[in-house]
Amino acid sequence: MRLKDIGEDKLIELIKEQCHTEDKSVLCGVGDDTAVTRTDGNTCLLSTTDTLNEGIHFNLSKHPPLELGKKAISVSLSDIASMGGVPRFCLVSITAKKTTTTKFIEELYHGLNMRAKEFGVSIIGGNTSTGEYFSVTTTLLGEAKEEVVLYRSGARIGDILYVSGTLGDSALGLKLLTSKENSDNQLSSAIKKHLDPEPRVGLGRILGERKIPSSMTDVSDGLIKDAGHIAIASNVWVNINSDNLPFSKEAKKHPKDKELLILGGEDYELLFTAPPEKDFEITKISKELNLQITAIGDIIENSTVKTNNPEPVTITNKNGINLKIELEGYEHFITK
Amino acid sequence: MRLKDIGEDKLIELIKEQCHTEDKSVLCGVGDDTAVTRTDGNTCLLSTTDTLNEGIHFNLSKHPPLELGKKAISVSLSDIASMGGVPRFCLVSITAKKTTTTKFIEELYHGLNMRAKEFGVSIIGGNTSTGEYFSVTTTLLGEAKEEVVLYRSGARIGDILYVSGTLGDSALGLKLLTSKENSDNQLSSAIKKHLDPEPRVGLGRILGERKIPSSMTDVSDGLIKDAGHIAIASNVWVNINSDNLPFSKEAKKHPKDKELLILGGEDYELLFTAPPEKDFEITKISKELNLQITAIGDIIENSTVKTNNPEPVTITNKNGINLKIELEGYEHFITK
Repeated sequence: MRLKDIGEDKLIELIKEQCHTEDKSVLCGVGDDTAVTRTDGNTCLLSTTDTLNEGIHFNLSKHPPLELGKKAISVSLSDIASMGGVPRFCLVSITAKKTTTTKFIEELYHGLNMRAKEFGVSIIGGNTSTGEYFSVTTTLLGEAKEEVVLYRSGARIGDILYVSGTLGDSALGLKLLTSKENSDNQLSSAIKKHLDPEPRVGLGRILGERKIPSSMTDVSDGLIKDAGHIAIASNVWVNINSDNLPFSKEAKKHPKDKELLILGGEDYELLFTAPPEKDFEITKISKELNLQITAIGDIIENSTVKTNNPEPVTITNKNGINLKIELEGYEHFITK
Repeated sequence: MRLKDIGEDKLIELIKEQCHTEDKSVLCGVGDDTAVTRTDGNTCLLSTTDTLNEGIHFNLSKHPPLELGKKAISVSLSDIASMGGVPRFCLVSITAKKTTTTKFIEELYHGLNMRAKEFGVSIIGGNTSTGEYFSVTTTLLGEAKEEVVLYRSGARIGDILYVSGTLGDSALGLKLLTSKENSDNQLSSAIKKHLDPEPRVGLGRILGERKIPSSMTDVSDGLIKDAGHIAIASNVWVNINSDNLPFSKEAKKHPKDKELLILGGEDYELLFTAPPEKDFEITKISKELNLQITAIGDIIENSTVKTNNPEPVTITNKNGINLKIELEGYEHFITK
């Protein structure tokens, strides 16, 4: 069987099974946004790695190296954020072409270091090698007290599902960036969000410290898929209210792209669940950070057995009509 | 200017300059075999990352996935070994083709986990994405007490240069593996060493704990280049005695390949310096581990200014004749 027949989630399941460990210092291994390991100090070590490949995740003619550097580290910073952690160190492995210019490398690392410094992170090592296309792998190491760490697995029936910021801008930005109408490379806010998303590290830390969420992840694969990760890890179902989804002014101008806006990934917003009594505190944090946080759905009972419906996420409008959106985010391996 | 004009060492210098940090907890950043950072516990965190790309580092028709998995993690284990550290956790990021089979992935992870378990390491996370060729990036996290960590920079004039095991087998193995004569895929010990090198984790730990080396690195880029890394970091020169170089029985059968044997990389042996009074202890360790350790050269004064010779490594035979070997190991970016 080939990977295009099984898809990314099943591939990760296959890898997870093989990477079982008896090491008691591993609090969380393969399958969440970061690994969590106990150290001999007072904090846990959070570690995560992400690869961006030319032609798959970015197009060099559209993605300037400065923004690519910032995005590469932001993707990993977002994983630390979604665990409620503090990012500390970064390793960067690049595969460059022999024809890559030193100017490109300088700008890429300028972007990596700019974003790193913004969040108190030092780039401490890495690797360089050659290949036929450009690729960058970032490994982020962070820390958090054991009792602060937030997993995908804590959602409970009756919890509310929240998301920070707005949804779908990155996917819309990618569409605009690659469309013929944008031949003058005009940078709208959606395009900026695609090229250079802002990881929600501050929000993640505050939510963790104040022990507000019952579970958390980030919107990297797309709302439905990421909500599904919480649902599966927590053994619950999620019902998303499509009327409540937060869209930017720019996104609202593209009603025809609604499917794209809902399914698109790479927003790097935080998606979390919390019991209803925390709503007041969440509103307070939203004001403190001047960052929109929206209640978009509910955690409901897993009734897979009763209904024979294996989809853990439903999305309905105020009239209770289930939107027939293909329930998947960006899927790496499946050939459509 | 393009990377093919400047080469890997200058690229790393360029990156190192950009990644300067003021963070006091970074004891060693870009430029050694691993980064070393202080934690709030009793040990330092060692971190390193390595990428192996199809077509550059391995050929899938010659490199079975089980051995590829073992090699991918061994390359990073060797970096932890060369700092005198204890490996603990590994993250694995793979780029797979859509046509990659699940069997291939299973065997790759079987190899990764086999080698990990052998050294007490747990694979705790990673990333999966698609690309046009297969690629695997391993990030290894290890630990060591601050006073035990061995750097490239401690070599002193009068020290002796040692290497573990034998040299050149991996390069010879690669040549044999890809030669027409080996069309029946016979696995000689040199081929085995190329496909599945054994990281010297035990030796690295003992050398660190007993505080024997003044400096250490591993033979990944090739003897001359790696000895050069010690020389440059320590601001000394290295003279290697070519008559003392340890070659395996198989390598000795290939006298015509002497250049390849001396310059070849990927042996993942430990290369270290120690003052002459440690020689007795080194012999003892060699016997304890039943592992050959050979004195192959001397650390001498850096006389660059006097002689106007910028090459930090010379290689001479017993008659003092300088072997005119092109002084470079595997060079990623230079186009020859």
